[in-house]
Amino acid sequence: MFDPVEKLKEFIRHPSVSADPACKAGMKGAQDFVGGLLTSIGFSVEVVKTDLHPIILATRGANPTWPHVIIYGHYDVQPADPLNLWKSPAFEPEIRGDRLYGRGSADNKGPLMTHISAVARLLERRPDLPLRITFMIEGEEEMGSPSFPKFLATHSDRLKQGDFVFLSDTGIPTPDQIVITCGLRGLVLCDVIVTGPKSDLHSGLHGGVLRNPIQAVTELCASLHTPDGRVAINGFYDDVMPVEEWEREQIRKLGTDLGKYREFLGIPAFHTPPGFTPFEATRVLPTLEFNGIGGGYQGEGTKTVIPSKAFVKISCRLVANQKPAKIRALLYEAIRERMPKDVTCEIIDQHEGTPYVVVPPDRSNTPKKQSPMLAKAFRAADRAIAEVFGKPPLYLREGGSVPIIADIKRVTGLDSVMMGLFLPEDNLHAPNESFNLNVMERGIRASEKILEAIAGS
Amino acid sequence: MFDPVEKLKEFIRHPSVSADPACKAGMKGAQDFVGGLLTSIGFSVEVVKTDLHPIILATRGANPTWPHVIIYGHYDVQPADPLNLWKSPAFEPEIRGDRLYGRGSADNKGPLMTHISAVARLLERRPDLPLRITFMIEGEEEMGSPSFPKFLATHSDRLKQGDFVFLSDTGIPTPDQIVITCGLRGLVLCDVIVTGPKSDLHSGLHGGVLRNPIQAVTELCASLHTPDGRVAINGFYDDVMPVEEWEREQIRKLGTDLGKYREFLGIPAFHTPPGFTPFEATRVLPTLEFNGIGGGYQGEGTKTVIPSKAFVKISCRLVANQKPAKIRALLYEAIRERMPKDVTCEIIDQHEGTPYVVVPPDRSNTPKKQSPMLAKAFRAADRAIAEVFGKPPLYLREGGSVPIIADIKRVTGLDSVMMGLFLPEDNLHAPNESFNLNVMERGIRASEKILEAIAGS
Repeated sequence: MFDPVEKLKEFIRHPSVSADPACKAGMKGAQDFVGGLLTSIGFSVEVVKTDLHPIILATRGANPTWPHVIIYGHYDVQPADPLNLWKSPAFEPEIRGDRLYGRGSADNKGPLMTHISAVARLLERRPDLPLRITFMIEGEEEMGSPSFPKFLATHSDRLKQGDFVFLSDTGIPTPDQIVITCGLRGLVLCDVIVTGPKSDLHSGLHGGVLRNPIQAVTELCASLHTPDGRVAINGFYDDVMPVEEWEREQIRKLGTDLGKYREFLGIPAFHTPPGFTPFEATRVLPTLEFNGIGGGYQGEGTKTVIPSKAFVKISCRLVANQKPAKIRALLYEAIRERMPKDVTCEIIDQHEGTPYVVVPPDRSNTPKKQSPMLAKAFRAADRAIAEVFGKPPLYLREGGSVPIIADIKRVTGLDSVMMGLFLPEDNLHAPNESFNLNVMERGIRASEKILEAIAGS
Repeated sequence: MFDPVEKLKEFIRHPSVSADPACKAGMKGAQDFVGGLLTSIGFSVEVVKTDLHPIILATRGANPTWPHVIIYGHYDVQPADPLNLWKSPAFEPEIRGDRLYGRGSADNKGPLMTHISAVARLLERRPDLPLRITFMIEGEEEMGSPSFPKFLATHSDRLKQGDFVFLSDTGIPTPDQIVITCGLRGLVLCDVIVTGPKSDLHSGLHGGVLRNPIQAVTELCASLHTPDGRVAINGFYDDVMPVEEWEREQIRKLGTDLGKYREFLGIPAFHTPPGFTPFEATRVLPTLEFNGIGGGYQGEGTKTVIPSKAFVKISCRLVANQKPAKIRALLYEAIRERMPKDVTCEIIDQHEGTPYVVVPPDRSNTPKKQSPMLAKAFRAADRAIAEVFGKPPLYLREGGSVPIIADIKRVTGLDSVMMGLFLPEDNLHAPNESFNLNVMERGIRASEKILEAIAGS
């Protein structure tokens, strides 16, 4: 009998921190473990080499007339430090109450094990299930999936044979309210480095004759938002997909307790563009944020210096229909136009990601054509989740970014059905990460029903 | 025979970084060295304990009818880092060309040694010179002289017996153009710390609902200057002493080669308030500068965080007649008024200093009453400098701050005759600090003449 919790514990014991070169054995252990597990339930497993960490591609079912679901997951985890803040060791899974603690328990080993367990149970019950299943499990998600685009390009013919991608790597608000994530924000990042004088200057001897690069950087930053919180760049909102009423309704169902959210953030007041609630703004609007700023003397006390350089790290989150390349061009144009001519300015490209949206069937007033199998998957998920969790799922776009979802769509044409499973209190990327085992058990049952429905009876 | 250069080298070898607790031995070494040197030329030396680094008080001449000059200097130096940018080690003095390289060579060990050497030579030649001399040499100048006000208070009766203070801790434009510094800017410093969310947030999950503290800090900073380079705080310029025509004329004599100055700074263009040349602006106008800014992720690459905190370090340079307490109040009021209510803001007081001005005799259209001995000192300096350097000195206010000069005036009533000796290329507070040995030798001769003239013949 397949024991999901024991298997998950075993999975967590492999310290598979992709970013840490010291975790080579942990990465290999996690690969071997998950590959072995899939072999044991009847999959044919291939380990696809990349420049860094291999991707596991495991398949069952060869009949090309059967529906074909591609289940995505990742076997790598975030670094576990600061280790001293963990109540039980990060890589020694421990159950306390109804939670399993350990690095990766929620991101993404628990949700991945949920689907593996669902498949294991389903195939035990129906060994001849008419469903092709491909597991595509990467080992670089926590590093930004650097090898994934190349893998997609070389394996696109094979992946195009799928009908849709199924995964759980997004969030839910409460244990009984599942969310099907219908969109992810994109990203455009850059650094702006401003140089004033060729070396640091004494602010007494030379103060008053030149523009301090900190002043130039702060004047630039201050120009990038309107007082009411919108991004002040011409054309920035031009391509933003309008929000439909069904989507606002879904967001309203998610919750309306702004006081609780404000308390969670620990801020005196929200600062949201007009016409949008905070719950809407993070999901359907693009942003421009300053992720870091630096220049001059940052130590204790004082140093009366005019620094030679100052910098700011900027990131834009993009929403559906915005193009990273266009936003990057608009942003750079604004920076270059606004930067005063008495300093010099360098812009350093950082990475980017395309936003993603999939509209569930029977929702939009202006529906787009969708593959029947994708629509079937959405309807199956809706039913299965309502039955198992006692409530239908919400269909929400999410503020975060998983750039590979848009990459998969672009390269293979496949959309993704993203069934959220982790809770705010799961502490992703933080000490004492855990996964709610009730959510896991119900997730397995829901996943099993969804896969069975897709296979047809 | 007293060898000024050898003595200066010996002085530099003591790494007397007052701000660095690891330099205790260097501080003690520099104290002992300078105390021993003054003892050796006939001074009676007292080491006055303070909360931090002692002040050396050394006297010669007891006849109360003799004129009494107090020579000020400091034996502490700035930190030497970044060490890897020094061509020869910071605390191993090395002569290259006509310059002596080493931390403190120009600020202030070289200029102080200039006066000690002048006194040594003069007393060797005229052991019975009818002049009282007090050396007052502190060890906390580079930290803002925190112990000096208390020392002044406890020693004011003794210091009031002086006629004026004589020192060299200010600058000159070229080796043959000495400047007598007639004013110093004051200072008001503070840190502004802005807190947004109670902890760092994921910019995807929460971006767009709250004001990023970096945004709040940069919006504040950007509000503090007008586009034409003035400080944008109500009342900031109210008390600024008007510039007289004799002063503009002195500044014009200093030089008009803006191209060369711009090249020295390494900037594409100046940014000076209207109505003032860059040479005037640093001397007669107050400023508001950002000495440091920080917040969020400052490392390589990217981290999509909304930081919990950001800060900026602000310093204002004040000119004659501005009051630090008033400017501090105006600045804080502006910060508090302009800071949005959706973040919290804390202002940390840092130190301050009163601006100083002394008008040399025979200059101003509206001269103030001056002590005859001070006027005599100014006239003696004018003559001695013209003889030794081939040109009369210029009388200029300087952009830098030596707050103790105003403190001395306030507590003892004594004005200061500040004979500038260091050059722009001396790299004060920077790697490869050096002192021009030709300036030193001529400085010694001028100082000797000035002291002899004051003593009377």
